Formats: sequence, structure tokens, C-alpha cells
Amino acid sequence: MTRIKTIGILTSGGDAPGMNAAIRAVTRAGICNGFNIKGIYRGFDGLINDDIKSFTTENVSGIIMQGGTILKTARSNDFTTEEGRRKAYENIVKEGIDALVVIGGNGSLTGARVFAQEYDLCCIGLPGTIDNDLYGTDSTIGYDTTMNTIVDCVDRIRDTAQSHERIFFVEVMGRDAGFLAQNSAIAAGAEAAIIPEDSTDVDQLARFMERGIRKSKKSCIVIVSESPKCGALYYADRVKKEFPDYDVRVSILGHLQRGGRPTAHDRILASRTGVGAIDAILQGQRNVMIGVRNNEIVYVPLLEAVRSDKPFDKKLITVLDELSI
Amino acid sequence: MTRIKTIGILTSGGDAPGMNAAIRAVTRAGICNGFNIKGIYRGFDGLINDDIKSFTTENVSGIIMQGGTILKTARSNDFTTEEGRRKAYENIVKEGIDALVVIGGNGSLTGARVFAQEYDLCCIGLPGTIDNDLYGTDSTIGYDTTMNTIVDCVDRIRDTAQSHERIFFVEVMGRDAGFLAQNSAIAAGAEAAIIPEDSTDVDQLARFMERGIRKSKKSCIVIVSESPKCGALYYADRVKKEFPDYDVRVSILGHLQRGGRPTAHDRILASRTGVGAIDAILQGQRNVMIGVRNNEIVYVPLLEAVRSDKPFDKKLITVLDELSI
Amino acid sequence: MTRIKTIGILTSGGDAPGMNAAIRAVTRAGICNGFNIKGIYRGFDGLINDDIKSFTTENVSGIIMQGGTILKTARSNDFTTEEGRRKAYENIVKEGIDALVVIGGNGSLTGARVFAQEYDLCCIGLPGTIDNDLYGTDSTIGYDTTMNTIVDCVDRIRDTAQSHERIFFVEVMGRDAGFLAQNSAIAAGAEAAIIPEDSTDVDQLARFMERGIRKSKKSCIVIVSESPKCGALYYADRVKKEFPDYDVRVSILGHLQRGGRPTAHDRILASRTGVGAIDAILQGQRNVMIGVRNNEIVYVPLLEAVRSDKPFDKKLITVLDELSI
Amino acid sequence: MTRIKTIGILTSGGDAPGMNAAIRAVTRAGICNGFNIKGIYRGFDGLINDDIKSFTTENVSGIIMQGGTILKTARSNDFTTEEGRRKAYENIVKEGIDALVVIGGNGSLTGARVFAQEYDLCCIGLPGTIDNDLYGTDSTIGYDTTMNTIVDCVDRIRDTAQSHERIFFVEVMGRDAGFLAQNSAIAAGAEAAIIPEDSTDVDQLARFMERGIRKSKKSCIVIVSESPKCGALYYADRVKKEFPDYDVRVSILGHLQRGGRPTAHDRILASRTGVGAIDAILQGQRNVMIGVRNNEIVYVPLLEAVRSDKPFDKKLITVLDELSI
Repeated sequence: MTRIKTIGILTSGGDAPGMNAAIRAVTRAGICNGFNIKGIYRGFDGLINDDIKSFTTENVSGIIMQGGTILKTARSNDFTTEEGRRKAYENIVKEGIDALVVIGGNGSLTGARVFAQEYDLCCIGLPGTIDNDLYGTDSTIGYDTTMNTIVDCVDRIRDTAQSHERIFFVEVMGRDAGFLAQNSAIAAGAEAAIIPEDSTDVDQLARFMERGIRKSKKSCIVIVSESPKCGALYYADRVKKEFPDYDVRVSILGHLQRGGRPTAHDRILASRTGVGAIDAILQGQRNVMIGVRNNEIVYVPLLEAVRSDKPFDKKLITVLDELSI
Repeated sequence: MTRIKTIGILTSGGDAPGMNAAIRAVTRAGICNGFNIKGIYRGFDGLINDDIKSFTTENVSGIIMQGGTILKTARSNDFTTEEGRRKAYENIVKEGIDALVVIGGNGSLTGARVFAQEYDLCCIGLPGTIDNDLYGTDSTIGYDTTMNTIVDCVDRIRDTAQSHERIFFVEVMGRDAGFLAQNSAIAAGAEAAIIPEDSTDVDQLARFMERGIRKSKKSCIVIVSESPKCGALYYADRVKKEFPDYDVRVSILGHLQRGGRPTAHDRILASRTGVGAIDAILQGQRNVMIGVRNNEIVYVPLLEAVRSDKPFDKKLITVLDELSI
Repeated sequence: MTRIKTIGILTSGGDAPGMNAAIRAVTRAGICNGFNIKGIYRGFDGLINDDIKSFTTENVSGIIMQGGTILKTARSNDFTTEEGRRKAYENIVKEGIDALVVIGGNGSLTGARVFAQEYDLCCIGLPGTIDNDLYGTDSTIGYDTTMNTIVDCVDRIRDTAQSHERIFFVEVMGRDAGFLAQNSAIAAGAEAAIIPEDSTDVDQLARFMERGIRKSKKSCIVIVSESPKCGALYYADRVKKEFPDYDVRVSILGHLQRGGRPTAHDRILASRTGVGAIDAILQGQRNVMIGVRNNEIVYVPLLEAVRSDKPFDKKLITVLDELSI
Repeated sequence: MTRIKTIGILTSGGDAPGMNAAIRAVTRAGICNGFNIKGIYRGFDGLINDDIKSFTTENVSGIIMQGGTILKTARSNDFTTEEGRRKAYENIVKEGIDALVVIGGNGSLTGARVFAQEYDLCCIGLPGTIDNDLYGTDSTIGYDTTMNTIVDCVDRIRDTAQSHERIFFVEVMGRDAGFLAQNSAIAAGAEAAIIPEDSTDVDQLARFMERGIRKSKKSCIVIVSESPKCGALYYADRVKKEFPDYDVRVSILGHLQRGGRPTAHDRILASRTGVGAIDAILQGQRNVMIGVRNNEIVYVPLLEAVRSDKPFDKKLITVLDELSI
């Protein structure tokens, strides 16, 4: 293994609040430890197109509190091809990049892992996704901010739901994972959550609604995890058919969930894992994701981080059930 | 005219942040000046169904910062009929209500005006609507909060729009008025606004987009006023057809625009007009809306307040045009 | 009068949220209308020290939502001397600046007026101060944001005041004007405000407190306008002496009142007056402040804007009295 | 051990955002599992004075998003005496309370432990304190909200610090623990933190400042943990003496750190530990605190929870050092 002198950094996939704090942390800790830092623009496409710039501490000044990513991001189709990755590697050689820090979610870290293996490269992953679906870290950069954005939106929706005594189906993000939906339902004091990890049929929902009516709760919020086939609109339609007297409304929160100033939690997670990435490189680690578990930095092999079964605590379903009585 | 001893208060139509602050102000200033206050629930329906409760200062304690309305609200179909208004008047007599304070928008104040005329009743209106479409007052209760909610949402959307270099069409409320769309576009630094007061054809938008591309602004936000036929989805579709290379997205902000803690401005407007309503009653005013113009309380005849032509300052269109270069 | 080609812009005095939005508006509207724009750093000191840079639209990109001022600011002692102003004028000539836009409060606009007169220069003022103490404009850039910051802080303080049943004296800014204190007291639902426009003696306060106790309101918030001799600490001490059983606390909000993302209102006010400054220059106006009154742009002679008697609506005192019963 | 039928709940010590969410969770989960719930007012004083009320789900409706505690709180001197605790126990017997849930920090859980031991009572603790100084739980209810409040305040202060190129010493809470100071410094991008866990002498600070000056960073934020002898004022004075040219300011955030709507994190932590308290009672647990570690509910013996040495991760000091270069 050659001694690492230059570290490239990129953000990839869906953007997440806190990515900028992570870019800042990698850049500053890298420079502080004697590395050169190069910023790669637009995810893996920037490697393929040699869209790369040398970074000083100035480049990351004042970005810790900004949402989005100053490096831009993309989902690269070219990088899924051998040809694309070959071009990417050529630019890595050309730019003299010895190690790569990739900030992103499941797909991006999978790409990093394949690339690292193919070209025997040092790749360090940072868990950057609002979906919280990476294995081996208590939470991911962006998840806490998005949780708070959702809860803030649902607090607002509840104001009007109660004033008009309406039922709202609120659709939130989460890809294939129900973390955002289930936990935001608990935090917002919603009456129910519909998540991929737990099948909800309309009969269940109907019984739940009737129980609510008997208790004369006249407004109601149901959080629905996004889903191509049966999202909030689907459930709203079904309930309208079953209970034509209800005043049912739908709110799809959409892309505003991705933005915003990162919370304290996400800034700290990004800062600690960013510094952790440089530490890992100094220690000769390769192809690990930097996570935080039980308040401590952990190294999770990339292969393990992206496995699809991040455990979902089923007790959270009970918590919501007991609190929405 | 009999001496007024008891004042009824209701909120009607779409809810708006600050309605609670107004309820509090009317109740406290009323009690402070020796009146009895009765809260009427669910808008004019509460008059028709005698859904009415005596209020003390306790009933309005701690509500100044709450969104929504503790009196609930509704759009009453029954009240549009003579039969409905007759029942409402019977309950007014039965409850001993001598004057009515109605907090609501265009439709609600029109209802109040008709009712006042029919039964020779003292009705005072407070401008409670997020749409800002009432004549004679610089702004309406709820408008400033909703403006800030929209701007906060668009700030978030811009984070992800810039990170992914996308074009967003963001649909906002406003009924038939473009105040929310035009002003939030200025405040959020959006690139364009599509409003009912100014016809925008797709050619115009296309030229605008091309200008943006030449200037290599790669992300773009267009605020679209809600409209049954040509909202954000309509414009997004058209632009996608014209410019298939653009990554175009739509975000419909929806009901979250109605809720949330009222801003300082809306709390003060609600407090001042609420106290102003009691003052007006003490001065023998009837059938006026309490507004604020140039920082001073004004009395606007209900008929004038609801006329449909609240002037829209066309110079705001120039402001946005010059700032989005 | 020579035709104006180049406009210099500076921010001066205490910073206010929205100053950046104003800088952006002047720069963009200026460029849009064919002017050259030069940014002057650190207030009038930047004129004296020739700390000046040409601006393009890029310089003001993305700043509309940032607090503070990218041009920095200062209170210049040198500029109060003839010698200082002479140096400043020499640099104005050297840099080819034909007109000056000054964003600031009372002191800064007074400086601008003196300078304009002395050297027969075109100076346009924008009302940039959190204190709202400029005559001729309904509000000043920064005032609305600071109001909301204060109200948010007092909402938080009330949470703990009620939980512990304590009395809080909260000191807010405002220089010699009680706008911030009186209006934030109304908006936050505080029990009283102590402002320079209305003398409050401790006896009054004591009677007020006793009335509160009789009504068994056990917590209480009093907003106090900053004052060198009798601020929040002074009143807290006096009340502690009179009522040793009370649990009295003080909170001095301090400099956090100056910062933060500007509200929608302040961004719009800054954008409109910034565009208005360029319009005024195009129309040959000189030595006026651009204000907004009754939703319309107005030109206020600088001499009038800075006169010390911006009217304070005494009815606001009644509003607070009636609402805190 | 008698079967538990009635559970008393109280909040004690300094209030923390999320206490209401915890009260709601204990009440609802308790009722859902067949228990009677009694709310005890003003901490242990409410036990001594029999200030106790039966709770239904209605009592906790709509409080999940409210800061403070609807049960009020106090630091009870009487409860530190045997006589006080004897009276408290008599009321427990009189009210038929079989188990006690105490929400509070170090002092309150110590009181609960002593009381439980003395009278062989089932006491369950919930970690309710902004200071995060309880052993055995990853975080405490209120800590995350306070962190975000501090970071929001420091973001504001930075706006004005940069505009005026000033040095700010910002004092934050934390009792004897530096969690709030150190982590908020990382999250806010502050230049340094002064915490009890790490001695900072003025020489160190001076070297740090000089380094900053050489790098021409002209503004600077130092977070200082509250301390009776050497808080923010002490350090500011020392730096002013050493560097008379600096423009040094102090901001003491004070009690606003205690209030505000709880964050998503704190609402979830409160909800999960509240439901966990009822689970623990059902399982026959006694005298444990309910915590969350690594996303899972844990039972921590009260004696262990309040021991004084919650580990402070010294690596956080390195993180801040590397990021503030």
C-alpha cells in the first residue's frame, strides 16, 4: 500500500442535510493531518468527467449550517458500467487521488464498495441519507433533520386538522424503510403509521377509525410511508369509500423533507464521522463506513453497512399503539 | 339600539394562524370592559346548532401562540339559506347575544354582512385569512405566518434543487389572489412566480428558462399560485415537453400552509384588531371590519372589505424580474 | 448633475437581518438597469480606507436568506471628522462612484446626510435597523426578524417560568425606542412592558404584581427595554426587595437579537426598498431614504427620516393592559 | 409485593423540554394497561402537600409538543428531610399510590432512590434533564432540544460576530458537565469550548487567539460552560486585558435554554421511556431508571444512574480542535 497523500471527497445519491458539515469535517481534519483534499463534483459522475477541484479550508468555510451539498450530487448511471468505472479510475490516477471518501446512502456505498474492490482502492464511506437504512450506525447523517422537518410539518397539519375536524393522510419519505414514518408518527403524536415493515390492511385501519369515533376524537393523522403502489392517496381513497362522512385529506410532504439547516445532532454526527474518516485512513483502514454506535465511533465494513436488513424495532409499533389511545 | 351586554365570537371558513390570538384578545378586552363573552363553535353552524359556551379569561389562557382555532371552524352550507340564518338568529336571541364578532375571510364576512342586515344585528369582522384578499387592511391575520411557512419550505426545496440541479414548480395557496405566490417568490429568491393577476404563457416561461440556461443557472424555482386548471403540475408538464433534458419536479405545499405558531406580526395584528373590535362596539360601530393601515386601526364597512378588487401592486412583478436576473 | 454610472453600496452601524437581502436587491436591480456596482466594506471606514470591490450578480448569490452583512459593518469614528469624510470623498472620486446607497439606522443615515451635503453627492438611504426608530417608513429592515426572535425566546422562557412559577424580567434591545419591547410584550402575551416612552415606577409594578397574585397567576413575564441605568436587573432587584417571596429571575437576550435568517417580511422590505433605491436614482432623487408606507414605496428626505420623534402609538399600552388581565 | 394498581407521576428539579411528552406516555401507556394514574404537582412538594389529581387521557391531550411541564416542578427542600419524606409517604398511602414514576435529573433521581429504599416503594425514574449527566442512557430527555436551542442562538450570534468582526464568549448551561458546551461548540462551528472536564488556562486561549489572528479569522466564538467562578465574563475580561485591540463581547444564554417545543428526538425518547416505565412496572422492576442505549430500552439501577462519573468522550475535544483550524 502506497502512503496516502491525497484524498478525494464526493457526495452521491439523494442529498441529505449535514452532507456539507461532513464535507467540512473531512476537509479540515484532512488538511489538519497533512493530506491534500480534492472535491469531486456531482457524485461519481464527477470522477468520470474529471470534475474535480483542490480544496482549502476556505472552500468549506461557513457551510456547517447549510442544507444540501456544495459538491452537488447525482445518481450516476455511467458508474454502474465497467466502462464508467474505468474512466473514473483513470481520473483518480490522473488527479493523484489515493483514497476516496464517499458520503451517501445504500446505493452510493454499494458503488463505492464495487469500485474499491475492482481497483484495489481505499474507499471510506460516511452514512449520508435521510432514510436511516444503513446497518451498523445508530443513525445516518440527515435522518434527524428530516425527522424534525416532518414533525414540524405534521404539527402544522394538526392545527388545521383539529380546527376543521378532518382526517389527514400524510405521506413521508423513507425509500423501503419505515424509520421516518414510524418515528415521526410517535414524535408528532399521530394516530397511526403505515409502514413497509408491517402490513396494514384497510380493515385494520377501519377498526382503528371506528374506535376513534367512539372515543369522539374527530380529527386524526395517519403517517404513510411513500410507496409506488399504495401511498397516502391509496389509503385516503379507501377510507373515503368506507366512511363517506369523513372529511379526508391528503398531504404529500415531498422534497422539502430533503432540505433545511441540519440539526445539532446531524452536524455533530457529520463532524465526528468526518474526522473519523481521516482517523481511519491514518490507521490504514480500507473500505469501511464510519458510524456512531452507543456514542462511539465504529468502523463497519462497507459490505455489512449496505446489507438490506437494518433491524426495525417492532416495539415502536406498540409504543405508537399505546400512545394513540 | 339596546345596550350591548353579551358578545358572541366565532371563527369561520379556512383556519388561519393567529385566529386564537384574536379570540383571546376579543375575550379579554371584552371582559375587561364589562361584557359577557360567549364562544360559538364550528363557525356559523354553531349558531344554527346552539353550540355555544360562556367564556372566561381562563378559556383563552395560553392560546396566543397556538395555530388553528380553539373554536373550530367550518364552511356552513346551512347558513347560506334563509332557514339556516333564521335558526341562527333564534339562538342568538335565546343566548342573549347582542353583538357578534366574526373572524374569517371573504366568504365569512360576506355571510356576516348579510346576516347583520337581515336581522339588524351588530356584527364586527376581523380579517382572518391566509390569503390577504380583504380590502382596506394592510394585511390579514394569518398571511404573515403563511408567508414565512412558504418561504421556509422553499428555502428547504432550494437546498435539494441546487444539489441535484433541478427545476422545481412549487404550488402555494392563495385562492384567487396572487399575494402569497408573488411575495413568497420575492422573499424566497425564486426565479419566477405564476399568479392569477398576470397571465403567464408557456412561451414566456420557456424564454425565461433559456435565459437562465445561458447564464448557467442550473437550478430554478418557480412559485405557482394554486388553480383548478393550471397549477404546478400543468406548468411542469409543459416545461418537460419543451425541455426534455431538464430534471423537473413538483412540490405542492398543501395544508401545512394553514398551521403553525403565529408570527409576531400576526399575533400583534390579531391582538390589536381584537381589542379594536371591543372599542368599536363601545363606540357604537356596526358592521365594520377592523383593519390596520399604516400602523393605525381603521374601520372598514363590511361591504367594502369583501369587494373583490383588493389592489395588487404590479410593481412587485418588476421587483421579482429584476432580482431573478 | 453628471449622469450616474457607478453606485457604491455599504452597510453601517449595528447589523440587522435583511441587510444582505438589501445588498442583493441594490446590486441586481442596479446591474439590471445598466449601472456598475461597487461594494464598500466595513461601513464608512471602507470609504476612508478604500476597502472597495466591484460587484457582479455572483457576489450576491445565495445571500437573501443570510443574517448579518457580507459587506461587514462598523461604527466609524473617523467619519465623524471632516478629515475622515475628506478621505472618503477622495476615494469616491478615485473609484468613480457617482452615487452612494447607505443601509443603516439613525446614526448612519445622519452621517450619509452630512456627507451628501458637504460634497454635493447623491446618497440614498435604506432603513436598516432592528430598532424601527426611523421616521417615515412603517417598519425598518431587521425589525420584524428581531421581533420574532424575541417572541421565540420569550415563548421558551415562559415554558420554564410557568413550570417553576417564577417571575422573569426579560431585557430586549431597542436603543432609545420601545417598539421592540412594547410589541414583543403584546406578541408574547407578556404581563407588562417597561419602555422609555412611558415611565413605570416600581409602585405601579408592585400594584400590578399584587393584582396578579390575587388572581393567582403565579408566573409572570415583564419585558424591559434596554437602558444604561434601569434595565431588567434594576427592576428585578426592586421587586425582590418589595416581594421577597417571589422567585424572580432575569434574562438579558443580548446580541442573539441581531442575527438569524431574515423573515419573509424583512426579505420583501429589503428587496422592495433595494429596487426602490435604483428607481430613485433613475428618477434623479437625491438624499432620500426609501421606505414603505401602507404597502407603497415612499421617498423620505434623509433629514426627516432621522428626526428623533418617530411616533409611538400609546394605544399599544392599552392593548397590553387589557390583554394581560 | 402487593399488585400495583395506581401509579403516581411527578416531574422534579429543573424543567426540561420533553417532560410533557413523558407525562403523556406514562399516563396513556398506564391507562392502556389498566392502571390508575395520578398526577402529582410541583415535584416532591406535591407529595408532601397532597397536591395530587387523578389523570385521564384527556389531561395529557395535546401536550406532546409543549415545553415545560404541566405538573409544574420544584426543587424540594422539605423532601431532603426525614420528616418531609414521612409526610410524603403518608400521602402516598392515603392516595393509594403503589408505584411512583419520577421524571428528573441527578438530584431528583437521588431523592427517589432514598425514598424508595426508606419506604420499600416501587420507584421508576425517567432521565429528564437538559444536562445529559445521567449514567447508563445515551441521552436524556431535554438534552437534544437544548442542544438545538443553543446552536440556533450561536448561529444568530455568529451573524453579528462576523459582521462586526468581534469575539464572543457565549455561556451555556450544563451544571457540572460539559456535554452541552463541547457538543454545541462542534455543532455551531465554534472556535473553542471551555468545559469543566478539561482545564483551559488563559495562556492556551491566548495562543489559540493568536493563531486565529495569524490566519486572519477576525471573528471568533468561544462556548463557555456555566461556572460560579469562571464563566464567560471571567474569560472575556482576561482576553480583553491580554488583547486590548479585540472587540470582545459576552452573551449569557440563560433560561431560554430550558424551554421550547421538544425536538423529534426528545419526544421519541420521552415516549419510549414513558411506555418503558409501564413495561418495567408490569415486569416487576423496581428502582430503576429507564434509558435508551444503542436504540434499545435499558433498565439502569437508580444508584448507578446518578453516579457522578458519566464518561465524557475526550475525543470530542480533538474533533473541535481539528475542525476549528
